[in-house]
Amino acid sequence: MSDAPEVQVKATSNGIPVPSFDLPLPDRPEIITANIQKLTELTPNPRNRFIFKALIKHLHQFINETSLTTEEWMAAIDFLTRTGQKCTPLRQETILLSDVLGVSALVDSLNNPIAGGATENSVLGPFLTEDAADVNFGESIASEGKGDYMYVEGRILTTDGQPIPNAVIETWETDANGFYDIQYEDRTHPDCRGRLRSGDDGRFGYRAVVPVAYPIPGDGPVGELLLLLGRHNMRPNHLHMMVEAPGFHKLVTAFYPDGCDYLRSDSVFGVKKSLVVNLKDIVDDEEARKRGFPHGDSFKLLQYDIVLLTEEQSTAMRAGIEEERYTITEIIKSTKS
Amino acid sequence: MSDAPEVQVKATSNGIPVPSFDLPLPDRPEIITANIQKLTELTPNPRNRFIFKALIKHLHQFINETSLTTEEWMAAIDFLTRTGQKCTPLRQETILLSDVLGVSALVDSLNNPIAGGATENSVLGPFLTEDAADVNFGESIASEGKGDYMYVEGRILTTDGQPIPNAVIETWETDANGFYDIQYEDRTHPDCRGRLRSGDDGRFGYRAVVPVAYPIPGDGPVGELLLLLGRHNMRPNHLHMMVEAPGFHKLVTAFYPDGCDYLRSDSVFGVKKSLVVNLKDIVDDEEARKRGFPHGDSFKLLQYDIVLLTEEQSTAMRAGIEEERYTITEIIKSTKS
Repeated sequence: MSDAPEVQVKATSNGIPVPSFDLPLPDRPEIITANIQKLTELTPNPRNRFIFKALIKHLHQFINETSLTTEEWMAAIDFLTRTGQKCTPLRQETILLSDVLGVSALVDSLNNPIAGGATENSVLGPFLTEDAADVNFGESIASEGKGDYMYVEGRILTTDGQPIPNAVIETWETDANGFYDIQYEDRTHPDCRGRLRSGDDGRFGYRAVVPVAYPIPGDGPVGELLLLLGRHNMRPNHLHMMVEAPGFHKLVTAFYPDGCDYLRSDSVFGVKKSLVVNLKDIVDDEEARKRGFPHGDSFKLLQYDIVLLTEEQSTAMRAGIEEERYTITEIIKSTKS
Repeated sequence: MSDAPEVQVKATSNGIPVPSFDLPLPDRPEIITANIQKLTELTPNPRNRFIFKALIKHLHQFINETSLTTEEWMAAIDFLTRTGQKCTPLRQETILLSDVLGVSALVDSLNNPIAGGATENSVLGPFLTEDAADVNFGESIASEGKGDYMYVEGRILTTDGQPIPNAVIETWETDANGFYDIQYEDRTHPDCRGRLRSGDDGRFGYRAVVPVAYPIPGDGPVGELLLLLGRHNMRPNHLHMMVEAPGFHKLVTAFYPDGCDYLRSDSVFGVKKSLVVNLKDIVDDEEARKRGFPHGDSFKLLQYDIVLLTEEQSTAMRAGIEEERYTITEIIKSTKS
């Protein structure tokens, strides 16, 4: 026999009390929208309150403007559920959805405004690995036969035009088939990727191949969506670069050769005007061999000087954005009814 | 040796060509939004085109108005991914998210306007089963001891006030602990649910228990969201009813007793003004025993006449909504630049 009182299991709330104000009982659609907006005033954190009031406003306006049907709503529920369920540690379908709706690019663009002539960033993407080989000045990141010859060269500079020596540059790209090395099941070693360092004069130079346009994954909900929208699922060809140097803000970017069919309709809106590059066509067998291309004949030349912000410059720029956000939030707080 | 040509595997597109128009290369955030809106013009189906143009407009406006940070965007990606992944055949977290944001209620309200004095519908929820026992007039849907006595009675009527005989009524509710029978792991038979039929005079009557308020699931992303928003996760107590009769439109509804603490802040916005009912307090031992309550003493009385639309009335109403949607879509099509 136990002295413990009998515990009656009962469904209980999350502990948050009912609102202190009264909401009307809904007898038409507008009341539902008004009620949830009033409830959202309860959000403790002002920034979250501001975000969710804006989210709910636009979500409800969207439904009202389209007079969304129950069947369309159900299709959206099913789509979002399948999008989450398609995600694995190796596949992020929700980000892909954000990408094709221009959301990722817009967020990136708002958070990384053009500043002081610094090189703009571009999407990291899912193809960076940690096992790239170290590559010396002038060496190749690609095995022979992986694509058309391309030589990449330039300098790593401050916004004042001073060279930044010993910057670490990770670079990666597709081969001529439009695949990254990790997309091959029989991959035995890293290819079409490498890690190099800028010299004392800030210079870097390496051999690569001309990257090739490729599709984003089409076998999931996002692939279905693009078909519904009548949009192709291609990304224009590009070369990834990630640059780090002590005291400077890390840059993740990519360069998009002009002339690609998909340059102006990138399925994930990753292209920025300042990152479009002209590949020079060097038809000069001797020059090609001098650069280290075994078959000589000709090659493409990509030249670009990369400008990094110092950590101080980056912090100051971000503080400016943060202040603006804070101001917006405070204005909303002070003017709310 | 084979005569077949060597096939070079190459990444290929979904077959949709590049747009025939030229889009500018983005050098500021507005260009991204303008470009995706122009691309969305390619959507073949006009209704889909209209919906996605509205969706993208509001999504991008939301991001612009909040100047959403990269960290906030990442949190949203993570949240939506986990919401999809929380779903199982028995749990639909994406619908729950739609519910707590007032989206489900707004869609329901727009698609089911009040018509001809018919009883309004309410959310079906996840607790209907197919194994409810048949219950005769005056019998109980709840085992003795499952809660406070409640008697439910009324008529099934046409919008002209004529009785509808032999309508099939499914009804289900929580017990006094706030749980549906299927939430008990040791459930051996259906309880607090039953299937009955209206009589020749359209009347129905059955014994039940007073339902109890309960929380929506709090162990997933939606539970986290409500904590962030400072909102409780309770639903006011209610009695579900689903009514079907040949020639009439199926009604899924629920009745919400007045006086519940959570009536005016339902976490899923399911309450409608017309579905709030007064429970009469009948303190009359003889009457209680006459109604079949073994312990007598007293009981609550829920009286409600349920009015069904004929299939014709329902179809006509829906055709009206559809025509309005079609008109909106056509106007947009004809005025687009």
